[in-house]
Amino acid sequence: MFKMELNKLFKPKSMAVVGISKKNPLSPGRIVMLKNEFEMQVKVYGIYPTGGEIEGIQLYERLDKLPEIPDLLVIAVGPDDTLDYIQQCADLNIPSAVIIGGGFAEIGIKGKKRQDKLEKIAFENNIAVLGPNCLGVYAPPLVDTIFLPTERITKPPKGSVALISQSGGVLVDQFFVKFKERNIGVSTAVSIGNRAVVDEVMLLEYFSKVDPETSNIAFYLEGFKEGRAREFLKFARESEDTVIMFFGGKTREGKVATLSHTASLAGNYKIQYSALRQNLVIQPHSERELLTSLKVFDVLSHRKNPFGDNVVTYGDVVILSVSGGHGVIAADMLKSYGLNRVDFTKEEKAKMKKLMNPVAREIASFNNPIDLTGSVLDTDIEDMIRYLSDIDRIECIILLLLPYPPNISFQIGRRIANVVASKKKPVVCFVPYVSKYEMIIESLELAYIPVFHSIKETVQAVSALKHRTRVDNVKKGNIFWEK
Amino acid sequence: MFKMELNKLFKPKSMAVVGISKKNPLSPGRIVMLKNEFEMQVKVYGIYPTGGEIEGIQLYERLDKLPEIPDLLVIAVGPDDTLDYIQQCADLNIPSAVIIGGGFAEIGIKGKKRQDKLEKIAFENNIAVLGPNCLGVYAPPLVDTIFLPTERITKPPKGSVALISQSGGVLVDQFFVKFKERNIGVSTAVSIGNRAVVDEVMLLEYFSKVDPETSNIAFYLEGFKEGRAREFLKFARESEDTVIMFFGGKTREGKVATLSHTASLAGNYKIQYSALRQNLVIQPHSERELLTSLKVFDVLSHRKNPFGDNVVTYGDVVILSVSGGHGVIAADMLKSYGLNRVDFTKEEKAKMKKLMNPVAREIASFNNPIDLTGSVLDTDIEDMIRYLSDIDRIECIILLLLPYPPNISFQIGRRIANVVASKKKPVVCFVPYVSKYEMIIESLELAYIPVFHSIKETVQAVSALKHRTRVDNVKKGNIFWEK
Repeated sequence: MFKMELNKLFKPKSMAVVGISKKNPLSPGRIVMLKNEFEMQVKVYGIYPTGGEIEGIQLYERLDKLPEIPDLLVIAVGPDDTLDYIQQCADLNIPSAVIIGGGFAEIGIKGKKRQDKLEKIAFENNIAVLGPNCLGVYAPPLVDTIFLPTERITKPPKGSVALISQSGGVLVDQFFVKFKERNIGVSTAVSIGNRAVVDEVMLLEYFSKVDPETSNIAFYLEGFKEGRAREFLKFARESEDTVIMFFGGKTREGKVATLSHTASLAGNYKIQYSALRQNLVIQPHSERELLTSLKVFDVLSHRKNPFGDNVVTYGDVVILSVSGGHGVIAADMLKSYGLNRVDFTKEEKAKMKKLMNPVAREIASFNNPIDLTGSVLDTDIEDMIRYLSDIDRIECIILLLLPYPPNISFQIGRRIANVVASKKKPVVCFVPYVSKYEMIIESLELAYIPVFHSIKETVQAVSALKHRTRVDNVKKGNIFWEK
Repeated sequence: MFKMELNKLFKPKSMAVVGISKKNPLSPGRIVMLKNEFEMQVKVYGIYPTGGEIEGIQLYERLDKLPEIPDLLVIAVGPDDTLDYIQQCADLNIPSAVIIGGGFAEIGIKGKKRQDKLEKIAFENNIAVLGPNCLGVYAPPLVDTIFLPTERITKPPKGSVALISQSGGVLVDQFFVKFKERNIGVSTAVSIGNRAVVDEVMLLEYFSKVDPETSNIAFYLEGFKEGRAREFLKFARESEDTVIMFFGGKTREGKVATLSHTASLAGNYKIQYSALRQNLVIQPHSERELLTSLKVFDVLSHRKNPFGDNVVTYGDVVILSVSGGHGVIAADMLKSYGLNRVDFTKEEKAKMKKLMNPVAREIASFNNPIDLTGSVLDTDIEDMIRYLSDIDRIECIILLLLPYPPNISFQIGRRIANVVASKKKPVVCFVPYVSKYEMIIESLELAYIPVFHSIKETVQAVSALKHRTRVDNVKKGNIFWEK
């Protein structure tokens, strides 16, 4: 299928780095060599014209003096020297390269000519080149070509999401920081820069068909590479993984910006939106919704998916809160996210009332949203979730859990987790992000119950579950009726 | 002006608490008595039918046995006993009360009758009653009637915002937690519950005209109290403070919820929106935008407002970033927040290029958004802000500051603060919320430069500055042209 060996790029056994400075400890090449030597599993070789060593690592004078042909070459030198090294990759049969530096298509005509040369060598010799003008690859525990010192950035945990970004800054900041905050795991993160050779289509195909660690493929692009949209759509439709796209540069103001920094033209957003939707690509409306979606997809992809075969098809939910106002705020968002309030019968309301402790019973409200009030006990919440789980027309419980009432204990998370484990009804939780409640959050997260720290994200998460069901149904050939 | 003494409610010298349990350490009355005794400055008296003591605090058998008439009575007993205590307030000339318990209008006809009685006594005797069915008052450092243990909640810092919420849960969670996270200060926080007596209009008038600590008055309501909208609008227009309103229960789904928990009908949102806008009430579209607005208003209200007399009138901004993708994402949001990109002349671009270090100069982009790239130095950012501050047609600088590039130092915040202090150009910053960068965030915040942790909030903040200018201009009688 692939002529280029993308697996060498993302799962290299060995790599070499060129562009190491002996004087400047912060030179990109030196940072990349040292972080891989000390922090990652790949075997690392440094190249330095006069040899010698840095921090005990032997440096080789030239690529052809290395004891083996490395799987990957990381190039952190000026643009003309870069071309020279790509030619060496061709001569020595080095199958993949990451080009960190700029000076190519993004700087105008002179750079465009360089990039043309680069493409010619790479395609003729099947070298999987990432970049130029990129951060490259973060594929734990093997390799990390990001030239920012590890102590300056935040790394996400390991998980099911392949993350591909046209902007390196967006990758390490908007994604890495927020993945970590939300406990969303990546299989591989890729900064594609000018995507002269390896582009979004190749990556979509590779992560869909080859990489067994990936179940969700998320893109931040500022437009498709010219002439590649159609193939992207084809692979998206065929993919067994969930494909998620978020575009930057959707507005005129944003486009002005994309022109300058990655040499691409942002496409016509509306046409793209429809085409992507038809081809089963999930498109969050905001960056926050993107993160929320990835969080729930990462959970669903897990072997320990806590919801079993239960899915959210129509978006029929109940909101279970211990604060009336939180219920109101969540209810206000339902319609705009395509979700519906399930109504209760008189009998059901009477049953729920009976389940509650005598004090809360008198002041609680059993409409939907349900407000259990500040007089709630752990066991009330547990019993309510158990009861609601058995009502078939409820597809998902939105639990707004405030641990402030004096009788809520630190066991509450574990208690909820146990009910969910036995009932497998989808439950999505809001818990405030306050360090003293970490134990509650952790006990839910350890059971793979998604926890969010804003009401909006909690509602968005259910919407993401619904989108995912639609896409899965079409992919499986199931007929799907919109209610 | 006021017949009721709201100052006794919010700035009591002494208070009494009824509804203390000797057996249950978590009874609301007991929590309120103890937290005020140990944590707040008000003089506290406990009432217990047989006297005695709790944790060394002497208890009095009846209100009329207290050594003084307290300014405030906190009532944490059942609804019928509550009425009895309100009558005692009338008999003993206790000028204010907080009723924590429910069992009034929110439970139906029986409760409505109780609430009618309560209102009659309170209005006839000018007792400033807060509630019933509320958390009451948090007015640091004097008084805190919130019956949730302090160690379970998060308290916001002291500042300029009077915060009034119809939902106690929303007050302590959505507001207290997020005020603390964002370093937004409150003067007084009020949970109004059923607002049988003290309502949004009285509070608006009190905080506008009487309380010297308040400059911004923020409401979370689920609709106006019946018959009170007109007066609210009148006082809002007259207020010298900035008035901010966020409604819950705007949708049909949300309304179902409000009916049950605070006995109010959410009004027609669209008509309200126009009326409030005409009367100079600022209305954020989301909870997050509300918080963002309050954050910048709190800064503007400070004696050390870092922007002096410079205001954002038309929303003309420059985006200054060290990551191209961040610039794109911010630029994409400008139009929808009523903001405009300022364009640069060739000469200006050439000057900016000259200011940069030789490496960054070649790869940076000087359109708007400006992308300084990962090769940026502290001094480049400093020089750029200085240069941009002198361009009159720029009203505000949106600074997207990622501290990941290896040459950004921990001094960067202080360096920026110094430039802003000398130029007084409005600058609003994005800095990722990562604990290792706390020093940078703190150095900016200490200089009252607003820092946000998402790109969206950073853009929203500039929009809030523009709204605030519009309102201030109309209030001052300045003519204001929309460009």
